[in-house]
Amino acid sequence: MTLEVVILAAGQGSRMRSTLPKVLHPIAGKSMLAHVLELAKAVVSSQTHVVVGHGADQVKSLLTNANIKWALQSEQKGTGHAVAQALPAISDDAQVLILYGDVPLTSTATIEQLISRDPSSLGTEQLNLLTVELPNPSGYGRIVRDSNGDVVAIVEQKDASAEQVKIKEVNTGIMCVTATALKRWLPKLSADNAQGEYYLTDIIAMAVSDQVAINVCHAADAMEVQGANNRVQLEQLERYYQRRYATQLMIQGASLADAGRIDVRGSVETGNDVYIDINCVFEGKVVIGDNVRIGPNCLISDSTIAANAEIKANSVLEGAIVGEGCSIGPFARLRPGSILAAEVKIGNFVETKKANIGIGSKVSHLSYIGDAEIGPDVNIGAGTITCNYDGLNKFKTTIAEGVFVGSNTALVAPVSVGKSATIGAGSVITGNIAEGELAVARSKQRNISGWQRPKKLPRD
Amino acid sequence: MTLEVVILAAGQGSRMRSTLPKVLHPIAGKSMLAHVLELAKAVVSSQTHVVVGHGADQVKSLLTNANIKWALQSEQKGTGHAVAQALPAISDDAQVLILYGDVPLTSTATIEQLISRDPSSLGTEQLNLLTVELPNPSGYGRIVRDSNGDVVAIVEQKDASAEQVKIKEVNTGIMCVTATALKRWLPKLSADNAQGEYYLTDIIAMAVSDQVAINVCHAADAMEVQGANNRVQLEQLERYYQRRYATQLMIQGASLADAGRIDVRGSVETGNDVYIDINCVFEGKVVIGDNVRIGPNCLISDSTIAANAEIKANSVLEGAIVGEGCSIGPFARLRPGSILAAEVKIGNFVETKKANIGIGSKVSHLSYIGDAEIGPDVNIGAGTITCNYDGLNKFKTTIAEGVFVGSNTALVAPVSVGKSATIGAGSVITGNIAEGELAVARSKQRNISGWQRPKKLPRD
Amino acid sequence: MTLEVVILAAGQGSRMRSTLPKVLHPIAGKSMLAHVLELAKAVVSSQTHVVVGHGADQVKSLLTNANIKWALQSEQKGTGHAVAQALPAISDDAQVLILYGDVPLTSTATIEQLISRDPSSLGTEQLNLLTVELPNPSGYGRIVRDSNGDVVAIVEQKDASAEQVKIKEVNTGIMCVTATALKRWLPKLSADNAQGEYYLTDIIAMAVSDQVAINVCHAADAMEVQGANNRVQLEQLERYYQRRYATQLMIQGASLADAGRIDVRGSVETGNDVYIDINCVFEGKVVIGDNVRIGPNCLISDSTIAANAEIKANSVLEGAIVGEGCSIGPFARLRPGSILAAEVKIGNFVETKKANIGIGSKVSHLSYIGDAEIGPDVNIGAGTITCNYDGLNKFKTTIAEGVFVGSNTALVAPVSVGKSATIGAGSVITGNIAEGELAVARSKQRNISGWQRPKKLPRD
Repeated sequence: MTLEVVILAAGQGSRMRSTLPKVLHPIAGKSMLAHVLELAKAVVSSQTHVVVGHGADQVKSLLTNANIKWALQSEQKGTGHAVAQALPAISDDAQVLILYGDVPLTSTATIEQLISRDPSSLGTEQLNLLTVELPNPSGYGRIVRDSNGDVVAIVEQKDASAEQVKIKEVNTGIMCVTATALKRWLPKLSADNAQGEYYLTDIIAMAVSDQVAINVCHAADAMEVQGANNRVQLEQLERYYQRRYATQLMIQGASLADAGRIDVRGSVETGNDVYIDINCVFEGKVVIGDNVRIGPNCLISDSTIAANAEIKANSVLEGAIVGEGCSIGPFARLRPGSILAAEVKIGNFVETKKANIGIGSKVSHLSYIGDAEIGPDVNIGAGTITCNYDGLNKFKTTIAEGVFVGSNTALVAPVSVGKSATIGAGSVITGNIAEGELAVARSKQRNISGWQRPKKLPRD
Repeated sequence: MTLEVVILAAGQGSRMRSTLPKVLHPIAGKSMLAHVLELAKAVVSSQTHVVVGHGADQVKSLLTNANIKWALQSEQKGTGHAVAQALPAISDDAQVLILYGDVPLTSTATIEQLISRDPSSLGTEQLNLLTVELPNPSGYGRIVRDSNGDVVAIVEQKDASAEQVKIKEVNTGIMCVTATALKRWLPKLSADNAQGEYYLTDIIAMAVSDQVAINVCHAADAMEVQGANNRVQLEQLERYYQRRYATQLMIQGASLADAGRIDVRGSVETGNDVYIDINCVFEGKVVIGDNVRIGPNCLISDSTIAANAEIKANSVLEGAIVGEGCSIGPFARLRPGSILAAEVKIGNFVETKKANIGIGSKVSHLSYIGDAEIGPDVNIGAGTITCNYDGLNKFKTTIAEGVFVGSNTALVAPVSVGKSATIGAGSVITGNIAEGELAVARSKQRNISGWQRPKKLPRD
Repeated sequence: MTLEVVILAAGQGSRMRSTLPKVLHPIAGKSMLAHVLELAKAVVSSQTHVVVGHGADQVKSLLTNANIKWALQSEQKGTGHAVAQALPAISDDAQVLILYGDVPLTSTATIEQLISRDPSSLGTEQLNLLTVELPNPSGYGRIVRDSNGDVVAIVEQKDASAEQVKIKEVNTGIMCVTATALKRWLPKLSADNAQGEYYLTDIIAMAVSDQVAINVCHAADAMEVQGANNRVQLEQLERYYQRRYATQLMIQGASLADAGRIDVRGSVETGNDVYIDINCVFEGKVVIGDNVRIGPNCLISDSTIAANAEIKANSVLEGAIVGEGCSIGPFARLRPGSILAAEVKIGNFVETKKANIGIGSKVSHLSYIGDAEIGPDVNIGAGTITCNYDGLNKFKTTIAEGVFVGSNTALVAPVSVGKSATIGAGSVITGNIAEGELAVARSKQRNISGWQRPKKLPRD
C-alpha cells in the first residue's frame, strides 16, 4: 500500500496582515509550506498533492521544481472540502496522510509513528489520528474515548459536556486515512454548521459508525502541531525551531554560549569543539571545522570555515571560504568570492570581495580588497584600497608573494605587483611593479613656518 | 462628576542605589513617572496632582510642561499621608484615582475598567479597588470577601489567619474613591503601627464601616500592577513592556525574528510586511515603510525608512531619512541630517552626516560624507573623505549628477564638482571641478629597483 | 577538626564529544573544575585533593599554581573508588567535603551551611548530606526518611517502591563526612551491581547501620547541584551563572536593559548609576565608573572605564583605559595599551593600539592610531593612519598638543609633530614637523577638460 500526502495550503491568513499567502511565510528562512514538503519527502510518499487557493499562482511559482500535483480549492469551504479537491488524483490503494501548510514543524519521527500505527490492519481500512495533550485545551476538539480507551468521537468546545470540557487530549487535524474510506466519507460531509463549511474532522464520526479502526498517536510537543495564523504564532514557531536546532548542535558537540541566542536559517555543520558565542546568525549552508571559535554578533552565510580559525566579534561573512587558522575580525566583512588560505589575517573594518588571499597574508585594518589575487606572506597596510572599478568595468589587482603594501595605498587596477616588491605609504599605484622593486607615488613634504590657522567664521 | 488623578511620587527608592529619585528611573527610555502621567492623560482626568518628596525639585524640573498640580510631602509618613497632601487641591465633586509613580505599566484598559465600575452608583460615594491574583501572594494584603463576594477587609500578611493566608487575590493600592469620602476618611487614619505610617489601605475598613460600595476590578496581568523598588524589578518591568510592544508590532503585521530580542524606546510605526531581525534597538520616533527589512543588531533612532529599503546587519541610524529601495550597511552609520533619495546605496564602514544624497548614488565602502550635497547617479569610491572641518569651521562639499569619485580621494571643502566630472583615485581635491572635467591631484609613480627592505632592529 | 576537600575530576565526559577532559569545559570562561576549586578555597579547607583520571596530565598542567594534592584514579570504577584514591592522603582528624568537578555552581552559602550542620556533633562522627527537591526527581536517588524525619536510606529509581518513587527530595552526591568513618566505610563498598562500580552513595546505608548522625542540608536551587554531562547541560549552567551574576549587578545598583542578555566571563565592578544596554559581553577584569553608559552589542575585556564615559553601540575594547567623560564608538575598537585621558573622543571605524591620547583629543572617523603618543586637544582627521610598521619593526608617532591633522593623512613613523602644527589633508608625512608649522605633502590638482569616461568593456 502506497502513501500519498495531501497538504492543505489554500488559506489566506488574513491575520498575518500580509500580501504574502499564509503558507509562504517563513520559519528559519524557509516558507512554512517548504517545511511541510520536506516532511512529506522525508516520510517517502509516492505522491504529494498540494491544495492551493489564495495566492495559488504565487505559491505554485515558488515551487516549480518539486514533484507536486496541484489541486485548486477556488472557494474556501472548509478542510473537508479542501481535501476533496485532491481526491480525484489519489489512487484507491493509497493511505492518505493529511498535513497542513501552516503547521510547519511536525517532526519526522512523529509522522513516521503516525503512519506506521497498527500495521496489522494494513490492507483493511483505518484512520490514524494525531492528537496532543494541551494544558489549556480550550477551543480545541476534544478526543472522547470509551472505557476501552477507544476513540468514539471528537467533540468541539461548544458541544462539549462539562465532563468533556476537562479532556486535555485534542485533535490536531493531522491524520492518515485509507483512500477508499476517504472517498466514501468526504462526499457525505455536511456544511450545515455555523461557518457553513465542510469539516474534515467529521469523518471521525463516520469512521466510528463504519467501525473503521481509529489508531491514535501522540505528538511529543504541542509546538509540533502548532499552526501559525498570525505573526505572534509565527514567531513562537521560529523560536521553537531555533531552540530545537540549537539543542541538536549542542548534542552533536558544539558549545553555544546561549542556546536562546543563535539563529540558523539553513544548515550548520560543526566539527569538534566548535564554540559559538552569543547572538550569531547563520544563513544558507555553513560548514565549520574543528576548534573554530565564532565571536558574538556574527552573521555568516553560505561559508566554509576551516579548523582552528577564529571569527571575532561583529563580523559578517557571505559566500566566503576561510582557511585553517585564519583570524577574522572584529568588524570584518568577507563578501562572496573571498577565498582565504591558511593563517590569513583579516582585521577590523576590512572588506574583501572576489579575493584570493595566500597563506599567512595580512589585511589588518581599514581596507577594501576586491577583485584581487594576493600571494602568500603579503602585508597590506592600513587604508589600502584596490580601485577595481572605473564606473563601468571591474579590473583585477595581482600582488605576488611577500609584497609589502604601505598604508593608505590605492592600487588602480588592472595592476600587478611583483614578488617581494614594496610600496611606499600613501602611494597611488597605476603601473605594474617588478619583483623586488620599491614603488612610491607621492609628493615631497613641505613644512611652512609661520602659518596662521583659520579663524572661526561668523555663522550664516 | 469629574475625575482627578493623584500620583504618589515622593519615595526615595534607596534600594535603587541611585542618585536619581526613584520615579525618574526609566522604562523603555522614559521615566516611570512619565508612563503614569501618560496613563492619567489617556483616561482624561480633569486635573493631575503629583505628590513629590525626595528629589522634588529634580522631578518637577523634568516635567515643567505638563499641566500638573504639585503637592509636597516633605516627610515620608505613608501613602495615606501622601494622598492627604494633595487633598486640599481636589474638588469635592471629583472621583479621585490614586496611582503610583513607581507602578508604571498599568494598562489604560484596566484603569478605564476601574474608573467605570458600577456607574449606577455615580453620584453616591464609592470606592473602586484594583486587585490582582498572585500565584504567590506572600507579603501582600489579602482581599477578604464575605459569602456574597463583597469585600469586607484587606488583611495584611502578618495579621492574616491560616485561612486568609491562602487567599491569592491581593490589594494593588490602585483605587478610585469619591473625594468627599476621601476627605472624611484620611484625617481619621492612624499611624499607630510598626512603621509609624499612615496607610491609605486603612480606608477600606472605613468604607466597609460607612457602608460605601466597594467595587473590585481585576488587573489582567500581575506585571500591570508591579512596582519597581530595585533595579531587578525595573528590569522585569522593562522586559514586560518590551514583550508587550513586540506583540503589538506583530499583531499589526510586522515579522520579528525574536520577540524577546527587540527593544523599543519610543515608537515604531511599521508598514506592511516589515521584517525586523534579532537584537534591534529603536529609539525616539521611527517610521518604517512597506517591505522594509532590518538586519540583526541595528540601532535606529528618530529615523524614517521608506518602502523596500534594506538596512543590513550592524548598522546605526540616527536622525536619518532613508528613501525607497535604499540599501544600507552592513556596518553603516547614518548620522543626523543624512537624507537619502531612492535607491541610494550606503555600504560598509561608511559614515554620513548632514548629507543629501541623490537617487541611485552609491557610497559603498570606508568613507566619510559630511556636510555634503550629492546629486543623483554619483559613485563615491572607497576611502573617500569630505574634509569638512578646518579645526574651527565646517564647509560644504557639492557634487553634481553623474560624478565619479575615485577611491582614496579627499575633498577639501568648500569645493564643488560639476556634472559628470571624474576624479582620479588618490586625489586631494582643493579646487572646484567643472562639468565633464577629469581632475587628478597625485604624484607620478616611481619604481626603484634594487631596493633593500628594512632589517629587523634590535629591541630596545 | 580540619576540613579537607576531595574533588572528583576523573571523568571523561564522552557525551561532551570533545577532546577536552570534561571538568575543563568552561562556564563563564573558566573551567568547571576552577569553579569548584574556588568554592573549596572560599570555605577555607586546609587541603584540597583532586582525583584525576581521563586527561589527568591536561587537567594538572592547567592548575600548576594551586596548592592541590593530586590523586590518580586510573580506572573509572565509580565515585566510591574515586574518593578512595584520595583517602591515604587525608588526615584522620579531618572532615571530608566531597565535591564534583562537573558540578560547578554550588554556592558558598550552601556549602558553608552543609559543613556547619549540627556542630554539636563535632568530634563525633557525622555525615552531612546535601539534598535537593526536584519537581521531576525521575532517575535520581530518593531520600527516604523515617517518621522522625531522619534519613534512613537513599533508594535508587529502579529499587524504589511506588511510594518512594513519589519522593521529590533527592541525593546530590555532595556530602561532608568524618574521615575516620570514611576510612572505615569505603573499603567495605561492593561493586556487585549492574555497572560494576563502587558507589559512594552506599556509605549512607553504612552510616545508618553504624548509627552515625546523618544531617541533611537543602540546596536552595536545583541548578546549584546540577552537573554537566553534555553541552546542553553546560549551556544551562552557563545561563544560570549569567542570570545570577546579572541579578547581583542590579542589586548592587547597575541598570541592565536585559538581564538575560549580558555575559560576564570574569568580573565587572560598577560604580553608581551605570547603565548597560543589551547584549554586552565582558571578559577578564572590567571596572566601570559612575554614570557610565554602555551601548548595545559591546565586547569589553580587561578594561577600565572612568566616570561619565559613554561607550556607544557595537564597540570592542580590549585592555583599554578610558578616561572620564570619554565618548567611544559606535564601531570603535580599542586594543591593548589604549590609554585615553579625560574627554577623549574615539569615533566610528577607528582602531587604537598602544596609544596614549591626551585630554580632549579627537579621532572621530576611519583611522588607525597605533604606537602613538598624542597630546591634548589634538584633532585627528578622518582616514588618518599611523604607519607604525615597516614589515619588520614598529615605530612611534608623537603628536604634540593642539595639532590639527588633516583627513586622509599617513604619518610614517618614526615621526614627530610639534605643538599646534597643522597637516594638510591627504599628506604623507615622513619628516618631523616643528611647532606651529604647516606641513603638506601632496600634489597640485590638475583639471583636464574634454575627458572621455571609460566605455563598458565586453565581458570575457
